[in-house]
Amino acid sequence: MNNFTFYSPTYFAFGKNTEKDAAKYVKRFGGTKVLIHYGGGSVKKSGLYDTVVNALNAEAIPFVELGGVKPNPRSGLVYEGIDLCRKENVDFILAIGGGSAIDSAKAIAAGVKYDGDFWDFYSGKEVTKALPVGTILTIAAAGSEGSPNSVITKEEGMLKRGAAGEPLRPVFSILNPEFTCTLPPYQTAAGATDIMVHVIERYFTNTKEVEITDRLCEAVLKTMIKETPRVIADPNHYDARANIMWAGMIAHNNICGVGREQDWSSHGIEHELSAFYDVAHGAGLAVITPAWMKFVMKKNMNKFVQFANRVWDVDIDFEHPEATAYEGIYRFQRFLKLIGMPTTFAELGAKEEDIKAMASHMGISEDNLLGSYVKLNVDDIEAIYRLALSDN
Amino acid sequence: MNNFTFYSPTYFAFGKNTEKDAAKYVKRFGGTKVLIHYGGGSVKKSGLYDTVVNALNAEAIPFVELGGVKPNPRSGLVYEGIDLCRKENVDFILAIGGGSAIDSAKAIAAGVKYDGDFWDFYSGKEVTKALPVGTILTIAAAGSEGSPNSVITKEEGMLKRGAAGEPLRPVFSILNPEFTCTLPPYQTAAGATDIMVHVIERYFTNTKEVEITDRLCEAVLKTMIKETPRVIADPNHYDARANIMWAGMIAHNNICGVGREQDWSSHGIEHELSAFYDVAHGAGLAVITPAWMKFVMKKNMNKFVQFANRVWDVDIDFEHPEATAYEGIYRFQRFLKLIGMPTTFAELGAKEEDIKAMASHMGISEDNLLGSYVKLNVDDIEAIYRLALSDN
Repeated sequence: MNNFTFYSPTYFAFGKNTEKDAAKYVKRFGGTKVLIHYGGGSVKKSGLYDTVVNALNAEAIPFVELGGVKPNPRSGLVYEGIDLCRKENVDFILAIGGGSAIDSAKAIAAGVKYDGDFWDFYSGKEVTKALPVGTILTIAAAGSEGSPNSVITKEEGMLKRGAAGEPLRPVFSILNPEFTCTLPPYQTAAGATDIMVHVIERYFTNTKEVEITDRLCEAVLKTMIKETPRVIADPNHYDARANIMWAGMIAHNNICGVGREQDWSSHGIEHELSAFYDVAHGAGLAVITPAWMKFVMKKNMNKFVQFANRVWDVDIDFEHPEATAYEGIYRFQRFLKLIGMPTTFAELGAKEEDIKAMASHMGISEDNLLGSYVKLNVDDIEAIYRLALSDN
Repeated sequence: MNNFTFYSPTYFAFGKNTEKDAAKYVKRFGGTKVLIHYGGGSVKKSGLYDTVVNALNAEAIPFVELGGVKPNPRSGLVYEGIDLCRKENVDFILAIGGGSAIDSAKAIAAGVKYDGDFWDFYSGKEVTKALPVGTILTIAAAGSEGSPNSVITKEEGMLKRGAAGEPLRPVFSILNPEFTCTLPPYQTAAGATDIMVHVIERYFTNTKEVEITDRLCEAVLKTMIKETPRVIADPNHYDARANIMWAGMIAHNNICGVGREQDWSSHGIEHELSAFYDVAHGAGLAVITPAWMKFVMKKNMNKFVQFANRVWDVDIDFEHPEATAYEGIYRFQRFLKLIGMPTTFAELGAKEEDIKAMASHMGISEDNLLGSYVKLNVDDIEAIYRLALSDN
């Protein structure tokens, strides 16, 4: 196990009606003037927006609002949010929605406290100051409600990039699983895939002797394997929604990832797909992650036998461990199909002829390889995209 | 799943040499005058005490010290610590040691900020204010390094009681597994038992549909089942020590226990044993917990089949689920013997003739039953003590 630090100071309120306390938490964490940041009309349709506005009014906390966050949130709206916060002396950002609204809120929060271009944080600069962000989560997927991360897409060049820094961890997050019940099956499954891959990117590591975090990763995956088909079959299954929603936080606040090298290659390779075709991130991951697995398994079988055995209940064939390993990947891919996810390029509307462009767009070179479990060059990334053309 | 809140804002620094940053963390969390609180000579023998003192001196942070914390820490030293802190204007308490030193530090921290008798907090009053506490952990067991709890024994009447409150969560905890390598096998095993029972007291619940926390509980137990025999065989096995030490935190910061009813009966029943005979808490739990299981299993089999199957790899006998359930308890008890724990009253030096006194000492009545998975009256508690007379 490697040395590590772990600091997850977000206050979580979980369950039915917890959104009614939003204003109370804004106050507790020092907010006196709020930007409500959200996406489309669903938070208005569900009544959540009104609940929050009423709660803020009841506590006499003034606010301004900025809607319009899109999936794969864009830098344009971030600049707009930064200007608005400065003009209105906003000192607290309340995101309502899924990972996109939260990531956009984090970008604004960092940008307000920074003299330069906020995009610097998405080009490698660490975030060391930000306005406090609170969240009311409506989609179980990104884990942004408990993470110090944010992903934004810059329209110019369609660059989809991440920023990180402890001040980006929300000070509070309100998770009411009821709000996830109206999510269509495809988005539900894409979110579930994202959650599973957040764990998988931590699980496949060359760090030895990390039994506790391995077991925690497996706990999240086992939970998702049980609960996801239940909510696809019955979208209003509160308890299954609840288990998925909390698993989504556990998957990404890094309690499953401390003390070990991590490998975020599938996310990196998928981000190009999302940027090129604007596909749902989780759906892109459903196509890319099994392809990544098939490619790297041949070079480093290390964790794949354990993954197959402990997560997918494959009996170990000690004479042919590669058969065990492959069966684990196959069961994962079959599971993704079962919950309605695409598993090939074509299903995403992605095109073979764009592969070279996407692979070269990532900024990978022989001095700057991707990943760690197996280090990937541009040819390897092209090979992974090609493996994703079919799901055989 | 029940509604819940989860807030675990402790900053954890984990791994080799992390103790060298102790003064840096004291400063970060606002300490300007420190009480170093510890037990016996082991922290001096190991050099840890000197490292901390040198680090404080290097940062020019003044300090006073109070050693002498005993296992099952006593109220007498707490009063002494409160007086010392007030006299010396201490604003930060740094505990070095195991759960006893940390729990004693928490009691002092709460007492300094309170006009009344600190024992009020151990008689049911919630702690709402306390001095900040930092910890340097040297024993993997109590989980106090990440919990809002403290247990103190009052000499008068030998009352062993717990207090709780968010201000009791340490602001930082430093965990270097190397310091646990010198712990004798018996204390190591007692600590491991305590960790496992912290999870077990959360696992056995009547709350339905808590798959994610069930799986997390099982993850900790599986880790302990693998790693504990390794450190008994090889006390210097750093990685096994590291997995146990982090599992000990996970077991008790409540990430495994949110959203569900918990049942702390085994702890309650054991506390009487510790108070009567001053036995190691974990050793007492090794005797009491299987006895509690045998007693309640007959009244509520609910979780026992799952415990046997998922934690102890017992194949489920669907025609005789009670046989599966019993086999799980048996394997747990056999594991405790394997790591060198006592499993009977006699091995602890406890006496059958004290059973009535211990059971009546708990303050249980028909209006105030113990536990929730199965509610226990005084007769039930006596029956559990009697089951602990043998390990058949």
